[in-house]
Amino acid sequence: MSDFVHQRHKSPTNLNQPRELIVACVPMRSNVNISQISRTASACAVEKMIICGAASLIPKIARDATSTLSIASHRSLSPVLKKLKQDGYRIVGIEQASNSQNIHHFAFERRTVLVIGNERLGISDEILTQLDDVIEIPVWGLPHSYNAASAANMALYEYCRQFPEG
Amino acid sequence: MSDFVHQRHKSPTNLNQPRELIVACVPMRSNVNISQISRTASACAVEKMIICGAASLIPKIARDATSTLSIASHRSLSPVLKKLKQDGYRIVGIEQASNSQNIHHFAFERRTVLVIGNERLGISDEILTQLDDVIEIPVWGLPHSYNAASAANMALYEYCRQFPEG
Repeated sequence: MSDFVHQRHKSPTNLNQPRELIVACVPMRSNVNISQISRTASACAVEKMIICGAASLIPKIARDATSTLSIASHRSLSPVLKKLKQDGYRIVGIEQASNSQNIHHFAFERRTVLVIGNERLGISDEILTQLDDVIEIPVWGLPHSYNAASAANMALYEYCRQFPEG
Repeated sequence: MSDFVHQRHKSPTNLNQPRELIVACVPMRSNVNISQISRTASACAVEKMIICGAASLIPKIARDATSTLSIASHRSLSPVLKKLKQDGYRIVGIEQASNSQNIHHFAFERRTVLVIGNERLGISDEILTQLDDVIEIPVWGLPHSYNAASAANMALYEYCRQFPEG
């Protein structure tokens, strides 16, 4: 009936210009989550990923992200975000918060820092005050939240959907 | 500057009608991936999840999916898909294949079975012949593919974006 044939090593899609998207993770609990986010970020060709504290990538999960993705490790995220805001980036957090916008109706700016919260604690009050926007991903059923890496993954998908050519 | 305040236990979004979306996983290598998919599927309020072979959920990862998501375990996926097609479901696989469509331009039917492939082997030739559509998620960088759970996650996001009310 159908004639679908595997193409296990299809060529990637080309960007017309490098992405101006940075993924910034607050200090997280799980290097598994950090590593999963890095793999997706690398496949999405994001400009850079920022990790905090003792975070490190697990090669088996992160795959090529360990060699091709630009990763910057910082002790604290706040001064980095301040600098990026001065550089013209819009600072967007994924979080369930008052005044958060439904990602389905959110138009990303091209030059964006996507801030990913901690698995338990989300995004701290200090960082929340630095955000230009907070976006949330709708949930319809229990556990009424997505895993942190899953939420990052969905937000990366949505950004790339809006900027398929960079 | 901003006044974003955490709302850690926001109410979920309501559906106007139950979802007619089923997630069907071929035999997978990793119960971690299966469990991650189940958590997202549960939060998206999908109708049912089908797993194959020896797959089982890890409660710490799957969270409430172990108690609230309807999960059916089968020895083989092929006869189940045949039955679901007779029941009017459109069978849609996520895979890099010839004739696969870019998910960015794909309009889901409401009554859909989303088929998730194995981490290494993807979707077998036997199952590929049963698919009505194959959709692929664009990649722009190495490793030129998404983790199986990440791809499932993105496809669930996209389906729910198209049917926010069920």
